[in-house]
Amino acid sequence: MKQCLFCGIVSARVAAQVVVSDEHTVAFLDVRPVFKGHVLVVPRVHVETLVDLSAQLVNPVMAQVQRIASCLVTELGSQGSFVAINNTVSQSVPHLHIHVIPRTKGDGLRGFFWPRQKYAEGEMGEYAERLASGLSR
Amino acid sequence: MKQCLFCGIVSARVAAQVVVSDEHTVAFLDVRPVFKGHVLVVPRVHVETLVDLSAQLVNPVMAQVQRIASCLVTELGSQGSFVAINNTVSQSVPHLHIHVIPRTKGDGLRGFFWPRQKYAEGEMGEYAERLASGLSR
Repeated sequence: MKQCLFCGIVSARVAAQVVVSDEHTVAFLDVRPVFKGHVLVVPRVHVETLVDLSAQLVNPVMAQVQRIASCLVTELGSQGSFVAINNTVSQSVPHLHIHVIPRTKGDGLRGFFWPRQKYAEGEMGEYAERLASGLSR
Repeated sequence: MKQCLFCGIVSARVAAQVVVSDEHTVAFLDVRPVFKGHVLVVPRVHVETLVDLSAQLVNPVMAQVQRIASCLVTELGSQGSFVAINNTVSQSVPHLHIHVIPRTKGDGLRGFFWPRQKYAEGEMGEYAERLASGLSR
């Protein structure tokens, strides 16, 4: 834990622009925002990815994400928000952090969702079956 | 609700490759995946954005997202996942849907998180204050 940057922020050993914190979470500004007002919400407890977050912590963490997404609109005048979590791949700090990013129409952020791929004939059903089978275990 | 595509999928009036469904959620494959195996998780009840999701539904919806993120790794062999929610802006269907997308190192998906912006001197503190003030109300 000693070397975890976000554990450092949680324990206030590392400085950050905290916007809100409570018993279970700390929310602070990303120093290199996609757009200004870009917030990261982290659980105080060190867990690596969303999959590792305990059921008891899902509600407090997501409630904070909801409140911040709402405040980006009411306080910063954005029209919407983008909430995103990188699990393992593209995850720069291995301590779960939820990006909450202000969005405005025409802000130029299309990136991640293009281009899209196409399933070959029958392939979509195969993918659905593989996942359904894993999920039914 | 009649014209909501995802309410149509929830009620099975509209066909979809459903991977799992339960009392509160339906999860199905996105027909135009960022990567194959790209799942959308929706609450059965029609709510427009994450902010509108009731506290009682946060856990069942996110638990399903967690299970699917885990299955993308165990069943599809991906190395991680990307979980994303567009609220209002870039939201193609106004029924909350959570993207759960398989990720693999080198898959080329950097898009959304670049380029990053920079805060001017003092600007970061101003943004933090505006949000903190809204969140303390």
